[in-house]
Amino acid sequence: MIEEYFREKIQKVDAFLYEQIKQKDAPDELTESMLYSVEAGGKRLRPILLLATMEAFGQNAERGLPIACAVEMIHTYSLIHDDLPAMDDDDLRRGKPTNHKVFGEAMAVLAGDALLTLSFELVAGIEDRHVSSQMKSDLVARLARSAGAEGMVGGQSADLRAEGRTLSPEELENIHLHKTGKLLSFPVEAGALLAGAAPGQIDLLNQFSRHLGLAFQIRDDILDVEGDTRRMGKSAGSDENKQKSTYPQLLTMEGAKQKLAYHLCEAKQCLHQLDINYRRLDEIADYIVQRNR
Amino acid sequence: MIEEYFREKIQKVDAFLYEQIKQKDAPDELTESMLYSVEAGGKRLRPILLLATMEAFGQNAERGLPIACAVEMIHTYSLIHDDLPAMDDDDLRRGKPTNHKVFGEAMAVLAGDALLTLSFELVAGIEDRHVSSQMKSDLVARLARSAGAEGMVGGQSADLRAEGRTLSPEELENIHLHKTGKLLSFPVEAGALLAGAAPGQIDLLNQFSRHLGLAFQIRDDILDVEGDTRRMGKSAGSDENKQKSTYPQLLTMEGAKQKLAYHLCEAKQCLHQLDINYRRLDEIADYIVQRNR
Repeated sequence: MIEEYFREKIQKVDAFLYEQIKQKDAPDELTESMLYSVEAGGKRLRPILLLATMEAFGQNAERGLPIACAVEMIHTYSLIHDDLPAMDDDDLRRGKPTNHKVFGEAMAVLAGDALLTLSFELVAGIEDRHVSSQMKSDLVARLARSAGAEGMVGGQSADLRAEGRTLSPEELENIHLHKTGKLLSFPVEAGALLAGAAPGQIDLLNQFSRHLGLAFQIRDDILDVEGDTRRMGKSAGSDENKQKSTYPQLLTMEGAKQKLAYHLCEAKQCLHQLDINYRRLDEIADYIVQRNR
Repeated sequence: MIEEYFREKIQKVDAFLYEQIKQKDAPDELTESMLYSVEAGGKRLRPILLLATMEAFGQNAERGLPIACAVEMIHTYSLIHDDLPAMDDDDLRRGKPTNHKVFGEAMAVLAGDALLTLSFELVAGIEDRHVSSQMKSDLVARLARSAGAEGMVGGQSADLRAEGRTLSPEELENIHLHKTGKLLSFPVEAGALLAGAAPGQIDLLNQFSRHLGLAFQIRDDILDVEGDTRRMGKSAGSDENKQKSTYPQLLTMEGAKQKLAYHLCEAKQCLHQLDINYRRLDEIADYIVQRNR
């Protein structure tokens, strides 16, 4: 049961994640603000992708916890900054008031900055005799590329400038490949690197996670139209209100669902070419296209 | 002449800094926003401290450029976020409109995030046969600690919560040790580490930069009262308007100037115990307490 698998992994990720923040000698309110958003939960999809990739290679997933949590910190910081009045101006996230609603905008900016910074400290400070210093700095650089101007932040900037304008499907895909794709691909690649995967295997996994990231985003867009606010913990219909281009809008709902099925199929084809124990990754892919929140 | 030395170093730092940002494959407006604030200039004190420390050990300063520029990126990102309406709400920085005044608040948040992220990519990606992978990840971790919840961002949070309240001199010092001190100490320590300094030398240099950081902040507070807006490129008297505690306020102007002289003296005493060519560091310390902007 994938739900059971998720529950078990989430428990380990959460414990590690909270501990990293609590052990910092920081002003109380900053710590509270960081913890607030991290504890708001969420699917922990990025950490779980990393742990499941390591297990697919027969590795102990616990070794992946520091990097898994670093990615989740970056994901969380991006949500805190995204929700700010100057950005998406959201009051609700994962069913709770957004960070700036509770701690004020200034503290929310700083909590985001601190989480981003901590993520790199975590990766650079990995203590694992199977991880060389060379690999640590390589992982820091890859994480930064996935999260920064050429990755997630680049995608957010492009998204910002696209508001109020109708995009071509290619433009929309390019935004999503950066905005959500890069930080979904990183944990799969990092897990494979930690597991000592061969370049050919990493290549297939990168194709897998590229399709997975697009499927994730299309499902998000569909949920924004069809989902209900209570279950999602954020406001349904918010994309339309913000005049953002979405897949259902550009391709019709039918077209968006076809595209979702296509990317799931492609993702699985890549995965199934690999001589690894990919069962959990397969189930995660199914979960991503079927999820209701 | 220290001015000549500064000019020469600034040229090298700037060229390297701009190149790092320009070579990124990022959306144009994000690149422009990042460059705008980085090109706004400033004293480049942190990079110069690193380069001067390396030279004090007889090393080629050029080797220090990646880390010097990483620190300057973090300094610049902190100014962009600090100037936001939700934080200090400043319209003017280094004589130019602040980033959010030109690019909007959302892009300013993202430009700051991207600069912070890029700084770690830069350190992790150092290509220098004298710098081991072990040292690279060590430097990433140290930079993150100096910049994050236990360092600069922690100091900013404490500063935020201190507004409108009169602090004790000890509280004020503690805020400054974090808010400005940590990111001024890091380049001195990083320069020493790159130069292969002995632990005892690093210890003395850390004491030196601790006093230097406090002297820097006291001078800043004095300038905020005595300086003129035009020369500083930011509004004089802004601390008082924001009801921030300052050294002149807590200790009188006379007391603040005495404390400034004390920290300069202590900084120099640490420096002069070192068997290195500390002339430039000595001159930088003098510059810090005499500067008019």
